[in-house]
Amino acid sequence: MKNIKLTIQYDGTNYSGWQRQKNAVTVQEKLENAIRETTGSFSATIGSSRTDAGVHAKEFVCNFFTDSKIPAPNFKMVLNGVLPEDIVVLKSERVDDSFHARFQSIGKKYIYTIITGNNRPVIGRQYVYYFRRKLDVEKIKMACKYFLGIHDFSAFKKKGGSVRSSVRTISEMEVTVEGKLIKFSVIGDGFLYNMVRIMVGTLLEVGVGRFQPEDIKYILESKDRTKAGKPVPALGLCLEKVFY
Amino acid sequence: MKNIKLTIQYDGTNYSGWQRQKNAVTVQEKLENAIRETTGSFSATIGSSRTDAGVHAKEFVCNFFTDSKIPAPNFKMVLNGVLPEDIVVLKSERVDDSFHARFQSIGKKYIYTIITGNNRPVIGRQYVYYFRRKLDVEKIKMACKYFLGIHDFSAFKKKGGSVRSSVRTISEMEVTVEGKLIKFSVIGDGFLYNMVRIMVGTLLEVGVGRFQPEDIKYILESKDRTKAGKPVPALGLCLEKVFY
Repeated sequence: MKNIKLTIQYDGTNYSGWQRQKNAVTVQEKLENAIRETTGSFSATIGSSRTDAGVHAKEFVCNFFTDSKIPAPNFKMVLNGVLPEDIVVLKSERVDDSFHARFQSIGKKYIYTIITGNNRPVIGRQYVYYFRRKLDVEKIKMACKYFLGIHDFSAFKKKGGSVRSSVRTISEMEVTVEGKLIKFSVIGDGFLYNMVRIMVGTLLEVGVGRFQPEDIKYILESKDRTKAGKPVPALGLCLEKVFY
Repeated sequence: MKNIKLTIQYDGTNYSGWQRQKNAVTVQEKLENAIRETTGSFSATIGSSRTDAGVHAKEFVCNFFTDSKIPAPNFKMVLNGVLPEDIVVLKSERVDDSFHARFQSIGKKYIYTIITGNNRPVIGRQYVYYFRRKLDVEKIKMACKYFLGIHDFSAFKKKGGSVRSSVRTISEMEVTVEGKLIKFSVIGDGFLYNMVRIMVGTLLEVGVGRFQPEDIKYILESKDRTKAGKPVPALGLCLEKVFY
């Protein structure tokens, strides 16, 4: 058995996230179907993370074990031949049997993109969240700093999921403005259910003046989900990179 | 009767172009439906151009006459309330009765976008044409110059359409590289059926070495459609602006 690591990109618009589900189309299902079609037998894939329905990924990582004689680097071409147009394998490589895409991930980078202005987006609307109200970006930048470091993110976690601890370390939380786009870039050692989307939603509350930057500190300390903002929609979120 | 000018943006992915057709969904149909829904009566719209199936538009212009009491600037909001998510009105304004979106247009700007590299695009694939072969961009730039000025573009016109003359003036034809993207920007006083797509397709033949830059000159002079390259796919083309 060979352990194959895949780096894939997908447009999450038409998927109920990564993880295989009954009665919903997921990226994992499409990928596992492609593996079965090309190798002739089923291999379960291990994903670096679940992603929510509608979330995109530029470089998602997963691995699977196979007896197939297809050389590891060729899986890229072979799988791309049968995958749908919204999923692509960027790289396929053989890795040590001990490699596990989820357990060995040491961090992830996400970018959340907002578009501002007087017009709802049309071209590229699948990848941005339209936010019409004026935002005080300087205040948002001040607020971002409170997320840095080690915190209990219970206030920024949707109920559900089965993680033991809500403590996570955020090493980067930056906001950049590119024309009408505002990008929130966050790197952490791991993220709870809906965590990035609730973080951004809370930062938007700072941006519109409902919260002050330092409120982030108190919301974190409260560990109370009701204190933070609403999650922003999935479509603006993209998993940029998984670190090992 | 008031003459209303609309500037609209649309994602052409799901449309058979601008112009109303039997048995095909078009942007014009969707817009005219929205106008009827909001004013209570049908108004024929006059578009600045037909666009091919699958072509996008950042700023398409059209006009229509109406007896509606809706103030001209409010049509933007009113129509956006009923238009599908892939069409948006950017601006609505009252214009002189003599304004005609097609006849009075003095020029148009199109951008055609190619993506290169080893991987077919996934995120944003709806807006770019994936071209895998290596391109000599310097040669393409040299070739572009031959399009500038007044020429008979018969060699760059798909059969069909009913225009009297194939003479057009190109005032800009530029190529820029932005990472993996190569953008072809062209401004002309008007364009024939498939003209931009055949121009870009022919420039790609220069880029891969099948044609030399100066061949553009001879192909133009030949007025022979069979001498030029194939049209590139519609999805990479976007009408950027209409000039009046």
